[in-house]
Amino acid sequence: MTDRAKLRWNAWGTAGHQEHLAAAKPLWTFLGDALCVGPLPQTPAKTLAESTLAPSRLAFGDVAPFQQAGCEISSSAEDRAFHARGDSYRDLLDLRAGRLDPLPDAVLYPRTRDACLKAIEAAARLDIAVVPFGGGTSVVGGVAPLAGRHRAVVAIDTTRLDQVLAIDRMSMTATAEAGIHGPALEQRLNAEGVTLGHYPQSFEFSTLGGWIAARGAGQQSNRYGKAEHWLVSARLATPGGLWSTEGYPASAAGPRLTDLVAGSEGTLGLITDATVALHAAPEARDYRAFLFHDFAAGREAIREIVQADIPACSLRLSDEDETHFYGVLGRLQREPKFKDRLQDFYLKRRGFDGRRCALIAGAEGDRASVRFAHAHVAAIARRHGALAAGSGPAESWYKGRFHGPYLRDPMLDRGLGVDTLETATHWSNVAALHGAVRRALLDAMQAHSNGKGICLAHVSHSYRDGASLYFTYVWPRATGGLDAEIAQWTAIKKAASDAIAAYHGTISHHHGAGTDHAAWLPAEKGATGMNVLRALKSALDPTGIMNPGKMGL
Amino acid sequence: MTDRAKLRWNAWGTAGHQEHLAAAKPLWTFLGDALCVGPLPQTPAKTLAESTLAPSRLAFGDVAPFQQAGCEISSSAEDRAFHARGDSYRDLLDLRAGRLDPLPDAVLYPRTRDACLKAIEAAARLDIAVVPFGGGTSVVGGVAPLAGRHRAVVAIDTTRLDQVLAIDRMSMTATAEAGIHGPALEQRLNAEGVTLGHYPQSFEFSTLGGWIAARGAGQQSNRYGKAEHWLVSARLATPGGLWSTEGYPASAAGPRLTDLVAGSEGTLGLITDATVALHAAPEARDYRAFLFHDFAAGREAIREIVQADIPACSLRLSDEDETHFYGVLGRLQREPKFKDRLQDFYLKRRGFDGRRCALIAGAEGDRASVRFAHAHVAAIARRHGALAAGSGPAESWYKGRFHGPYLRDPMLDRGLGVDTLETATHWSNVAALHGAVRRALLDAMQAHSNGKGICLAHVSHSYRDGASLYFTYVWPRATGGLDAEIAQWTAIKKAASDAIAAYHGTISHHHGAGTDHAAWLPAEKGATGMNVLRALKSALDPTGIMNPGKMGL
Repeated sequence: MTDRAKLRWNAWGTAGHQEHLAAAKPLWTFLGDALCVGPLPQTPAKTLAESTLAPSRLAFGDVAPFQQAGCEISSSAEDRAFHARGDSYRDLLDLRAGRLDPLPDAVLYPRTRDACLKAIEAAARLDIAVVPFGGGTSVVGGVAPLAGRHRAVVAIDTTRLDQVLAIDRMSMTATAEAGIHGPALEQRLNAEGVTLGHYPQSFEFSTLGGWIAARGAGQQSNRYGKAEHWLVSARLATPGGLWSTEGYPASAAGPRLTDLVAGSEGTLGLITDATVALHAAPEARDYRAFLFHDFAAGREAIREIVQADIPACSLRLSDEDETHFYGVLGRLQREPKFKDRLQDFYLKRRGFDGRRCALIAGAEGDRASVRFAHAHVAAIARRHGALAAGSGPAESWYKGRFHGPYLRDPMLDRGLGVDTLETATHWSNVAALHGAVRRALLDAMQAHSNGKGICLAHVSHSYRDGASLYFTYVWPRATGGLDAEIAQWTAIKKAASDAIAAYHGTISHHHGAGTDHAAWLPAEKGATGMNVLRALKSALDPTGIMNPGKMGL
Repeated sequence: MTDRAKLRWNAWGTAGHQEHLAAAKPLWTFLGDALCVGPLPQTPAKTLAESTLAPSRLAFGDVAPFQQAGCEISSSAEDRAFHARGDSYRDLLDLRAGRLDPLPDAVLYPRTRDACLKAIEAAARLDIAVVPFGGGTSVVGGVAPLAGRHRAVVAIDTTRLDQVLAIDRMSMTATAEAGIHGPALEQRLNAEGVTLGHYPQSFEFSTLGGWIAARGAGQQSNRYGKAEHWLVSARLATPGGLWSTEGYPASAAGPRLTDLVAGSEGTLGLITDATVALHAAPEARDYRAFLFHDFAAGREAIREIVQADIPACSLRLSDEDETHFYGVLGRLQREPKFKDRLQDFYLKRRGFDGRRCALIAGAEGDRASVRFAHAHVAAIARRHGALAAGSGPAESWYKGRFHGPYLRDPMLDRGLGVDTLETATHWSNVAALHGAVRRALLDAMQAHSNGKGICLAHVSHSYRDGASLYFTYVWPRATGGLDAEIAQWTAIKKAASDAIAAYHGTISHHHGAGTDHAAWLPAEKGATGMNVLRALKSALDPTGIMNPGKMGL
């Protein structure tokens, strides 16, 4: 289970985590070559002791009201530093450089819904802004401790609200508190033979409330849905009191206000607990790999699979560069084998020399559905020229499915910048959007560094009408200190975001808007839409204390 | 195709429609007996000539601005009467008695989005309320021409906005104008090999915009979804200008404001056109019937089917009384046959003497999915003790699936009251809700009539976490004139609605809130939810001209 006390304040995972890849010298040589920068420097992070923390702006008289609300309150350096940022690249730049400002002036730990309500009421009275903080794994600045126009800011850490309150096995729903971490939630559900099935890459450290607030997606979203799909109802502590949303399987009694909670990012209130839709714990689980001649063929196969309602749970298609990169990465980690040479020979014979695209296709559920899904997936893949590559590569992917973020810290230690971003669009626009964002990223990385960048992409979430695109990009970090590094990242991020907007993608498919995407939100929601968002905000949070600055609100 | 000019102003369908059941004398004897009232009286409707219409409150100067906006404008008796009400029982009582007040002061016919925008801007300037009017088939008072606090009210008839604007075959979406009727829309889509698959009972006469505004459901919603599920994006003419909502397959860029459009009932703006999600026109279509020993066994089978994600498109389970009633109705329409006696004998041998519940299970799509669905549906039904009754009864249901509303007018001609209502709740609560609403209806019909009532119910829409319940109820109409009839209906409706609220059902699953359900909305949305709705309304329609009085807004 997730032990908050053991988590690192400025890196992914627990203290003492050893990243075996960091020791793989060929990796650094490969990356240095690929980025055209030669040997990579050592760029270690500062310790907390080396960082400077501004004193808390809370007055002595501010403490008692929060304690009376039923919250533990802390202004220790450890607590404030842990809650100073989320887990975006931009956040890590700050933390690693020891620049912790802005900081929360204190961290509150409520244990009950009532304590949340009273703490928020007290904050409103005291003119103190509130940042709801679950796992703190936001990669879009969703937990930035901005005071807005208020005199101070506190983080409300929800992780002591960690109970499953009810499981309705007949209706296949569960009600759980917002601060429960992924592993604890699934352990409780699995013990009853059910699952939520929401496994984002951050699963080990993120919380139910965060998944909902950020409108997140798990890796098996084709089966289990995104947060907005599995959210049945929610309770939020707002400055005006408790907001309990409707909880019906479907309704025509006006717009469904529950829909406003998914993606609200703490700006409308703090989610205290939620009812979510469950599936039976899967009887069978089967992941298989396929190789396509190109990205377009693989995309067409995915489109056909989802438009024919084939019950796959996960369809993850890497583009040519990503397939190549992970292929190299896999071989770097072990001695070259005769098997590898044999495989290369076979692929060449089948017309796959050089560029190809890997698809991991997963199905979960009862045995008959899984069989049905795989029979159809395989037939469709074949029709699009794919080669079945068996379950081996798929099982490897499955085993390492939470591993991505652990790689980032050793890369940051070696002078590399690395970030991810994601978008979604309709099928008829996926190719154009992929090309535009890729070009924008590569151009910007080259323009703003002393080498060049690597850009990898995959489709990981698909719908009848479109799909998501997820980009990972690596570049040689600017030298000259934190401000230069921030300017470099900002320029690259802006180039990509502008391309997304110009090519009709959403600025985020499952990471959220936070502070980083706020500037692109008006293009997406329109003037009227922004007006609606502001009206909602002001109805629920008239003085604007809830998570100021996120979504531009 | 739907020809608006031929539709009856105070009854379902086109002028000259002959309802063959009306001539079936045994039907009236059966109903008279079942309701304990003996021979049924003749209670014909008044003609339009016998009705009195208040003069239009529009001034001469009000006409030009609407014409300049690009709208045809009419204040003919026919136009005003046609737009005076929807198609609820309560509406028909008024129309049949010739009580047309309240009436729209004029009817506007825009042909373009721009004309809608300008007409609404003009209305706001002139202090005139606007009722968006599509097919006018609302059964909850959704098109009641209420002026609210404004000096007059106009209906904006959308049925000349009837074009399909674009079909994206790759993304499986279509963009169509809001006033297109069901048959025209499906004809256009089918010609391209695609379908929306939205077939409500009102399909022949209702419009795309109305389906969205009322958050409607088609009879195959298990496959194609409710309006809120297939709505991709919408354009609305609001007093503040055009509102174009987001159009992505999925997004995490804040709450999805498109979700606010489904169920908005014209209170936030007039839907001018919408993009909707399509399916391939089904390659195969297979409907089959099953008989269960009781409602509980049938419900458990449906629950198992949907929770196992079996791709049925339609699962319609009648309770014991409804199964019995439609069985009798079927036999009344033809001479008794040897086959009927044989069937009774067989059913008795299989333990089905007397009470039973019929399930119509449909699957549509490609052949493999349809086969897969039916194999699983049949296996699950068998496990719950059901007898397969073949495709005959299912095909009969399918053929008559739009016929229900045609029966109402002849019943109204014979002194009968007849109404329907629907709700939804979680599986663990379906039995309790069914019992409570049924008891409330039967008690109220008996208490408020000189005989007794009939109450029939079915499950017609099901979800992983719950299901809808649809009630049809028939009672001997009060004598003593319109006010007595309205008081009688109000008492029965209130008893049912109170039971729904007390037993945690939604006040409507797919009919909408309108005026009839407005009083129960606060119990469902909560004080905070109503606050949110009012804030939305006032952001988009600050002077409150859009469809006043619906949802209590």
